[in-house]
Amino acid sequence: MEQTTLYEVIINLFRQRKFAELKTIMGQMNPADVANIIESADGRDVIALFRLLPKELATEAFAYIAPEQQEQLILAFTDRELKEVVDELFLDDTVDLIEEMPATIVNRILKNTDPKTRAQINELLAYPDDSAGSIMTPEYVYFRKDMTVEQCFQKIRQVGVAKETIYTCYVTEERKLVGVVSLLDLLTASYETVVGDIMDPNVISVGTKEDKEAVAAALAKYDLLAIPVVDGENRIVGIVTVDDAIDVLQDENTEDIEKMAAIVPTDKPYFKTGVLETFLKRIPWLLLLMISATFTGMIITGFEDKLAASVVLTAFIPMLMDTGGNAGGQASVTIIRGMSLGDIELKDVLKVIWKEIRVAVICGGTLAVVNFGKMLLIDRLLLGNLAITVPVALVVCLTMVVAVFIAKIIGCSLPIAAKAVGFDPAVMASPFITTIVDAVSLLAYFMIAQTILHI
Amino acid sequence: MEQTTLYEVIINLFRQRKFAELKTIMGQMNPADVANIIESADGRDVIALFRLLPKELATEAFAYIAPEQQEQLILAFTDRELKEVVDELFLDDTVDLIEEMPATIVNRILKNTDPKTRAQINELLAYPDDSAGSIMTPEYVYFRKDMTVEQCFQKIRQVGVAKETIYTCYVTEERKLVGVVSLLDLLTASYETVVGDIMDPNVISVGTKEDKEAVAAALAKYDLLAIPVVDGENRIVGIVTVDDAIDVLQDENTEDIEKMAAIVPTDKPYFKTGVLETFLKRIPWLLLLMISATFTGMIITGFEDKLAASVVLTAFIPMLMDTGGNAGGQASVTIIRGMSLGDIELKDVLKVIWKEIRVAVICGGTLAVVNFGKMLLIDRLLLGNLAITVPVALVVCLTMVVAVFIAKIIGCSLPIAAKAVGFDPAVMASPFITTIVDAVSLLAYFMIAQTILHI
Repeated sequence: MEQTTLYEVIINLFRQRKFAELKTIMGQMNPADVANIIESADGRDVIALFRLLPKELATEAFAYIAPEQQEQLILAFTDRELKEVVDELFLDDTVDLIEEMPATIVNRILKNTDPKTRAQINELLAYPDDSAGSIMTPEYVYFRKDMTVEQCFQKIRQVGVAKETIYTCYVTEERKLVGVVSLLDLLTASYETVVGDIMDPNVISVGTKEDKEAVAAALAKYDLLAIPVVDGENRIVGIVTVDDAIDVLQDENTEDIEKMAAIVPTDKPYFKTGVLETFLKRIPWLLLLMISATFTGMIITGFEDKLAASVVLTAFIPMLMDTGGNAGGQASVTIIRGMSLGDIELKDVLKVIWKEIRVAVICGGTLAVVNFGKMLLIDRLLLGNLAITVPVALVVCLTMVVAVFIAKIIGCSLPIAAKAVGFDPAVMASPFITTIVDAVSLLAYFMIAQTILHI
Repeated sequence: MEQTTLYEVIINLFRQRKFAELKTIMGQMNPADVANIIESADGRDVIALFRLLPKELATEAFAYIAPEQQEQLILAFTDRELKEVVDELFLDDTVDLIEEMPATIVNRILKNTDPKTRAQINELLAYPDDSAGSIMTPEYVYFRKDMTVEQCFQKIRQVGVAKETIYTCYVTEERKLVGVVSLLDLLTASYETVVGDIMDPNVISVGTKEDKEAVAAALAKYDLLAIPVVDGENRIVGIVTVDDAIDVLQDENTEDIEKMAAIVPTDKPYFKTGVLETFLKRIPWLLLLMISATFTGMIITGFEDKLAASVVLTAFIPMLMDTGGNAGGQASVTIIRGMSLGDIELKDVLKVIWKEIRVAVICGGTLAVVNFGKMLLIDRLLLGNLAITVPVALVVCLTMVVAVFIAKIIGCSLPIAAKAVGFDPAVMASPFITTIVDAVSLLAYFMIAQTILHI
């Protein structure tokens, strides 16, 4: 709410052309907030507002601005302005920018960077999407093993400002990563100490091809501020910092949640996604699941004459289907989340199934008992639906037990199976499970009904 | 996988009583990994393994161990051992520990801490659950405004090791927070500089009662390593560091995902939750949703004679219900996630509904057209189900449009409504939406059928 008011103040000042006041206010703001304001401005205001910013704040804010407005800004930049901004960006932010921009803009950006930076950018761009290499930055501080603490501080004072972090530094020997030393270690050591003597030789590092989600998980697990990325010969080529790891974790969470809800994932915020694009992200699964429901329809059609003989059974189809779907969804989502947090691994499959079997029996039993009571006491006695006899209630409640049992087993095993064959388990969530469970529990329903009611 | 092998090596060495080798191996491991190994050990092995660790590693690993094994360890500790561990823990970890332990252990822990620490612990325990106060630590570094950079470094060297971070330091004036200075700023300034001159006076801080999720979101948004927590008079009382913020974000994500899948949230990993406990987390929603499905059953019962007159209609009930549920689930989950990421706010409700209306019309239209073709070409012509006439297909496909439309509107507005009245929007996800959409779309189905088929 507060932010909105600030935005209105700024836009009002801007409309009244009170640029001096605007400069003062915006100069005191945080780059991320400035970026928010610029993103919310219309059309050419984006450029005018950006040009009002003090130079340093402008380049800092630029990294936070959404690609759409970044593109708009670059189109309006002179080559000199573009060079000023790109020079100040951290390399990983430049790479992110290049990945989002159309080819003509990419060419302009590369034209305005010095050859060394350009080489580094091209190297980073070559790493596969979603790999550690694609999110790392080469802007880290490293020391040779034989440097003294005094020499280390000299180096930090010289290069520190241009590095993404100086708080975790790396120790190398012939470019190979041999240790890590924190700035705190350096500060509490004497100036003459050799860094090789105070470094920690047990460095946690990741390979350039490691999945970025695993990199973020490692940072979170070991409470690190940065993690070094090494090539096949253990040479350090970059670092991933904790702020980027958080972004990766949040993006992956959003992606998992979208997949679980049968949506094709998108990395854009809700209001930045157009109606058509939203439609295209949602329709594939809706279509697929609609067509899959044909089997359920075929099962009902197959038992049509039985249903006609005992019409009361139809009324319980939705309840049985929903309960099965919910029970299966609970199991699948629990397992999917457990796998993505690293609590559950492929080898746990039998342990998982055994646990779900026991949970399913208690859940199914409880639901069946409650439902049996409800059908006979409320539906029959209180509401007077005399078609609900004890055998009918028995059919519904037995099916309930079977449906919950099957739902939990399918729900817990499909995500693990998906992971085993290399698919994303998140797809095996409620909507998908529901479709399968529907068909299976309907089949069970009619077979139990045939046996008990002799229809 | 690698970790499992290491675990097996360690357990084998342990069984063979090769303690010297064990000490060497474990001494080189990271505390988080040591904790994992100890958690996986059985019964009394937990204590024996822990006692093999070098003292410093032992206390570091202790903070990562799960509460269950922590309790086991404390029960086996002598008072001296307990004091050694607790003295080395960061205060926020001690508070976490106390919150998880039974009263007798809590008393032992408090008995073995010095009076000053005990006072700080009690203060932290008094903050409401889920507040910034409950996750902060008072172990931060602060400077008075008139201190020189040299004096700042002296202070860091003296107290730094016992603080949770020294990389972001705070500047106070009569205990009030007036600025923030990074260690990089201090390193690149001359020794005589007064810290008040190089500090950034625009500090982003949070109040002690701020929701911890909002605190974590602020850390992530502004790419901070720590955020200061202030009381009502802007006096700094603690900091929240980025590693704790990541844990908060991950826990909140898990909680949201569980709520979306109709599970009562738990903060324990899958295998640490017993069968009975898992059952108790899942059964409330299953029962509630099962009972709610009664309405759907009543609608079908109400139209029983119409259904008997046109039995073919029954076969399409599951498909209509599932598609409605999926379409509603997509909308609700998108909105819930958008709200939790801060992309969507309460005031956006009309914008959201207007967007979902347009998406719903295109989605519903597409599904209806595909389904119309499928029913007449495949079901009727190819499979020879002659009960499927053009009017029947028309009824099903019109209902599809209506169901998707209603599902998207309910799906997008219920989470916002929940938030407006102070409930957690995550509960308004697929299972809940499905139950409502089922009833509404069935009503629509029968009413459209009556109109078109004159049954």
